[in-house]
Amino acid sequence: MTIKLICLDADDTLWHNMRHFNAAEESLFTMLRPFAEADIARDRLARCEERNLKLYGYGAKGFTLSMIETALEVGGDRLPPQLIRDILHAGRQLLAHPVELLGDIQQTLESLAQRGRLALVTKGDLLHQESKLAASGLGDLFATIEIVSDKKAATFERLFERQGVRPEEAVMAGDSLRSDVLPALEAGAWAAFVPHDLQWSHEHAEEPVGHRRYKRLGSLADLPAWIDEIGLAA
Amino acid sequence: MTIKLICLDADDTLWHNMRHFNAAEESLFTMLRPFAEADIARDRLARCEERNLKLYGYGAKGFTLSMIETALEVGGDRLPPQLIRDILHAGRQLLAHPVELLGDIQQTLESLAQRGRLALVTKGDLLHQESKLAASGLGDLFATIEIVSDKKAATFERLFERQGVRPEEAVMAGDSLRSDVLPALEAGAWAAFVPHDLQWSHEHAEEPVGHRRYKRLGSLADLPAWIDEIGLAA
Repeated sequence: MTIKLICLDADDTLWHNMRHFNAAEESLFTMLRPFAEADIARDRLARCEERNLKLYGYGAKGFTLSMIETALEVGGDRLPPQLIRDILHAGRQLLAHPVELLGDIQQTLESLAQRGRLALVTKGDLLHQESKLAASGLGDLFATIEIVSDKKAATFERLFERQGVRPEEAVMAGDSLRSDVLPALEAGAWAAFVPHDLQWSHEHAEEPVGHRRYKRLGSLADLPAWIDEIGLAA
Repeated sequence: MTIKLICLDADDTLWHNMRHFNAAEESLFTMLRPFAEADIARDRLARCEERNLKLYGYGAKGFTLSMIETALEVGGDRLPPQLIRDILHAGRQLLAHPVELLGDIQQTLESLAQRGRLALVTKGDLLHQESKLAASGLGDLFATIEIVSDKKAATFERLFERQGVRPEEAVMAGDSLRSDVLPALEAGAWAAFVPHDLQWSHEHAEEPVGHRRYKRLGSLADLPAWIDEIGLAA
């Protein structure tokens, strides 16, 4: 089977992301220490994010709003306005931090581009993802950029149709089982899980061990070899 | 010249939008009355939005963050936490309000769809625009949905290329001279300005009176007739 379309996640697959969200969270828990233990604040924030997901969607702006809501919840009427100012500042830093590519990404993408068309499939704030892609210098390597509100099987089905490939001619690689691997498999494509040290609990899902079209890779640099393997299979 | 692609703005072209932002603003100015006159608060909010546009982009989440920042600026350290809670609530209402179509939109779109493929071209929060389109029940009438971070000439050039039409075979209609009319004209397309009673000052621009491919319409319902006129012209 020949792979024609190679789909890649962006955050924590091409460049660092979670470390910035984690740093913002940690600074929130430090700010809230006069009002609550870090574990309690962490739990409140996770619930708040989950509750707001349907309305805010993914991304740094909704996350900043959830940090503010959590601070109000934890601090009550004693919360000093300066603390909200500091959260807004942390949110702006999340949106403005420099893009740091994961190791060997440029080289890996060039190697992948020799094997098929590249598609970037990412969720989050539209402008923020566009800005990070522009700052990464990787934009020209991609045949198409898909910034989506969520990644479901239908997201991948539509992409394959627009790109004129059958699902079994496409592969998706990313650091989330829930958002990258499972929906791509459900859409009939191949899927590579490239775990990142930092993982958002929301993205957790059961690993589809033993699935014919699934592979866990140690690094994105191993993807070209797997694509070659798929090409050799009947 | 035959028009093949009919591009339409969404907010305040298909459905009401500014009235909801204006209501949120007015409730903010009422909340801030103990600290500042409405005119001063309005001016501060406008500056804050303009300053944050590059980082937050367009949409209700960035607007909510700017309302919070303005409240902190105007209220200083005397700002009660309850006021921030109320702003978050106003922001959530902005994201959750029911979609109210402008008059005769369904009928107008059906009439337009007989004349060419329809493309929705809108900016704002990705999930929010998708949700509004889903709630509007108009989604099936559009051949393509483009939710973009900003509308520039290049945005339209890329769209025309993807849709396989020459610029002079496309028309764009919307309520913003700055975001709908001028970039579409610059890209070589026809452009109709359909002014809405409520206009965001940020979207103001010089009207291209006398431009061969420009027309000001009293209502979107006048667009099919203008497209027919273009078709009859040499």
